[in-house]
Amino acid sequence: MGSASLTSSVATRRTDTRFERRLAEILEHGTAVFYEKGYEGASMRDLSRMSGMSLAGLYYYFESKEKLLYLIQKHYFTTVVERLSQRLEGVSGAEERLRTFILNHLQYFLAENHKAMKVLAHEDDVLEGDLGTEIRSLKRRYYHSCADLVEVLRHEHGLEFNLRVSVMSLFGTMNWLHTWYNPRIDPEATALARQVGDTFLRGLYAATRSS
Amino acid sequence: MGSASLTSSVATRRTDTRFERRLAEILEHGTAVFYEKGYEGASMRDLSRMSGMSLAGLYYYFESKEKLLYLIQKHYFTTVVERLSQRLEGVSGAEERLRTFILNHLQYFLAENHKAMKVLAHEDDVLEGDLGTEIRSLKRRYYHSCADLVEVLRHEHGLEFNLRVSVMSLFGTMNWLHTWYNPRIDPEATALARQVGDTFLRGLYAATRSS
Repeated sequence: MGSASLTSSVATRRTDTRFERRLAEILEHGTAVFYEKGYEGASMRDLSRMSGMSLAGLYYYFESKEKLLYLIQKHYFTTVVERLSQRLEGVSGAEERLRTFILNHLQYFLAENHKAMKVLAHEDDVLEGDLGTEIRSLKRRYYHSCADLVEVLRHEHGLEFNLRVSVMSLFGTMNWLHTWYNPRIDPEATALARQVGDTFLRGLYAATRSS
Repeated sequence: MGSASLTSSVATRRTDTRFERRLAEILEHGTAVFYEKGYEGASMRDLSRMSGMSLAGLYYYFESKEKLLYLIQKHYFTTVVERLSQRLEGVSGAEERLRTFILNHLQYFLAENHKAMKVLAHEDDVLEGDLGTEIRSLKRRYYHSCADLVEVLRHEHGLEFNLRVSVMSLFGTMNWLHTWYNPRIDPEATALARQVGDTFLRGLYAATRSS
């Protein structure tokens, strides 16, 4: 039930019920707790302290720590994909669309949800069974929304390179940011996305022309 | 004492004492336990089970889980820097030296010590106090051994770009590998290092010429 409610909360934010608003707050607190202590190190008690809710109250929203991690991962991956679809409307050309992908990823995970970036990266392989399968499928969809753009570029320019290595290199560049990015000294998301996009795109063209 | 012994073990492998050989085995088991369970989720009891040693036996080598993580981080960062120095002997030119850096990093962490790559990435910010300071200083030295080469390229070619973003992008590409690399379908370390080096270097040159 929690899961269905979250999905509808994401899809139709305006019709939020009290349950859904409360769940969204819990996911935010849960992300902060996992960010600080890691999934293994965090307890329901930590979450109760952080959210100011009783353990019984928390169990009303999700029945286990595993389920909370699932709801968190599902929320962020669903939302970033939705944002991406909105941003891509009216953007044409694979290069411009790929730049939009990079900007969307950095703005969402770096500027707005930097704690989630670390949690998603760290707890990548924790979930098992059906929950794990569902999250892996969401992530695969997100991966392909990027890989498809790189594939179009490869085709349009008659390039030859290992697509998977190339796309995963880009994700590595973006997802490693949570380990070093310091908003006081580093460029903000738009400038960062420009440098990352320039280096990636032109590196792709140049490296392939020479091989 | 454990720490001094490990340092000498790394520097003069041939004169290993029984203590040092045993410690090296423990570090390997410790890395495997942290790889499976994460630092927060791992207990001394897990380590005892994995290494077949009693808790009392383990405490003879290091006095806490924190100290074990310190010894592990110190070991891998010291060793990869030593390997790099050896490999760089006789290699001239910043571009070739940077390619050597990439190859050394991938061979060491991907081909030979892939569990360590995940542990170092995940437990990056766990250590505090003097232990944390010492590890951060080792990592800074390793970062600069890469950044200095990129800086030489920037200077030689009269380029203008954000050095820190550029170097951290490269580390991101390399260190994210532990989340997706599959030796059965992906290129081995040498071919991978070539593609990563090509894309990074030429991307660097091309992106800057255009700005």
